[in-house]
Amino acid sequence: MTHEHMTEDELTDEVVRRLDATADPRLREVMQALVRHLHEFAKEVRLTDDEWLTGIRFLTDTGHMCDDVRQEFILLSDTLGLSSLVDLINHSDVESLATEPTILGPFYVPESPWRENGDSIVEYDDGGQATVLRGTVRDQEGRPISGAVVDIWHNAATGFYAVQQPGIQPATNLRGRFRTDEQGRYEVRTVRPVPYPIPNDGPVGHLLRDTGRHEWRAAHIHAKVSADGFSPLTTHVFDRESDYLDSDTVFGVKESLMADFVPGPDGVRVCDFDFTLTPE
Amino acid sequence: MTHEHMTEDELTDEVVRRLDATADPRLREVMQALVRHLHEFAKEVRLTDDEWLTGIRFLTDTGHMCDDVRQEFILLSDTLGLSSLVDLINHSDVESLATEPTILGPFYVPESPWRENGDSIVEYDDGGQATVLRGTVRDQEGRPISGAVVDIWHNAATGFYAVQQPGIQPATNLRGRFRTDEQGRYEVRTVRPVPYPIPNDGPVGHLLRDTGRHEWRAAHIHAKVSADGFSPLTTHVFDRESDYLDSDTVFGVKESLMADFVPGPDGVRVCDFDFTLTPE
Repeated sequence: MTHEHMTEDELTDEVVRRLDATADPRLREVMQALVRHLHEFAKEVRLTDDEWLTGIRFLTDTGHMCDDVRQEFILLSDTLGLSSLVDLINHSDVESLATEPTILGPFYVPESPWRENGDSIVEYDDGGQATVLRGTVRDQEGRPISGAVVDIWHNAATGFYAVQQPGIQPATNLRGRFRTDEQGRYEVRTVRPVPYPIPNDGPVGHLLRDTGRHEWRAAHIHAKVSADGFSPLTTHVFDRESDYLDSDTVFGVKESLMADFVPGPDGVRVCDFDFTLTPE
Repeated sequence: MTHEHMTEDELTDEVVRRLDATADPRLREVMQALVRHLHEFAKEVRLTDDEWLTGIRFLTDTGHMCDDVRQEFILLSDTLGLSSLVDLINHSDVESLATEPTILGPFYVPESPWRENGDSIVEYDDGGQATVLRGTVRDQEGRPISGAVVDIWHNAATGFYAVQQPGIQPATNLRGRFRTDEQGRYEVRTVRPVPYPIPNDGPVGHLLRDTGRHEWRAAHIHAKVSADGFSPLTTHVFDRESDYLDSDTVFGVKESLMADFVPGPDGVRVCDFDFTLTPE
């Protein structure tokens, strides 16, 4: 079908029809929905030629910003709330007693070093406040899970993750994998996390500024928790005293993930946080 | 607002609300609509974590494929029908007597060499069929426009544009800018264009294959036509005998842009095609 005087809606229908031959039914469903929503967006705002080209350039710049340690498209997804939405779509069994998940973020690095319970993950003196994060991993009946893996990563008191500062922070600074003991307990010695701006020198930073938004995330420690027979959990532990809890720029904060960092002996803050996993 | 048990729709509303502070009202309108449609897409298909990550990787790979001579995001826009839709939104005054526009495509290079009417743009022997493209540039009352610029580019008989084959084709092969004479006429000596696959070694080519689509464009010559006091026109002249007129992979074919390449003396094909411009 050529589009002599084809209308906008006829063009959309034609593009959707061309995708009918997609062998995989799920890919067909996703792509046809994508085309319909993309076209609806352009029709609704009456997208101009210049705006289209601005979009092409924005996406190109975003791609060029991505490398082994920088994922600008995840930042974009995060700041548009898409990451949190996908999290809600897939992990929002709010009636369950399990720990709520939140987004992965762009700074996760696999294969963090194995540490012993009570070990410190601090390999670089950033002047941060000494902190103990500890708790128990349980199933939904409250039974401790021994041998669960608690994979921890967070930022230094300077605001940066190790992966953002090669040559300054050791690559494994403030990262570690812990195994829970027979009582399901884990314990991490670290520094208190601080709020930080997401990387703001790329297209996503420009977009935040152009849309009158700040670039700050509330202070948090990332955790991936996994154990045989249970669904892996990706979440954060937020510092209840942090700024930006109400306006986290990536929409990652959940009330149930806020925890107190309580003053302990010798100026150490102690954060008790238990994780509850759901069966596989 | 933190999203303790926030619903999907509440999250969408929250992201839209955060964009309220956008200073530029048009940017606010576009971004808020983009967020709503993006979220609607994810909710409708119940986008999974893995699908989200596949999308992130696809966009990243698409960005990495872009360089000075390759624009994979424009290819993506073209193959999803978005480019033709934006063209329809902005240039679809079908009641006018002007020449219909179509998409720019990814192979346009500015500053093509100036040529004299009747000159050849062939700088490389590709074995193509000798062709003359000629006609008159007019206003909507049919009056010839002298001094109009007709900027022509198309592919070689091998299927490739000069910009795709540095070191093989001269950079200015099959490209040229012509000025219409006192009678508004232009005349280009060239070779007959052939159907060609869009670049298929990147993410867009993979997507076409995965969705059961071919990668071919119907044979055409690109033209940008401009003159003082008139809106610039970007269009194609399609060979009416070409394959793929009914299934052009970028949805660029329009009935009114098809032309006959008529056998002339000495085996030369002659294509008469007039362009009609609208006032600025």
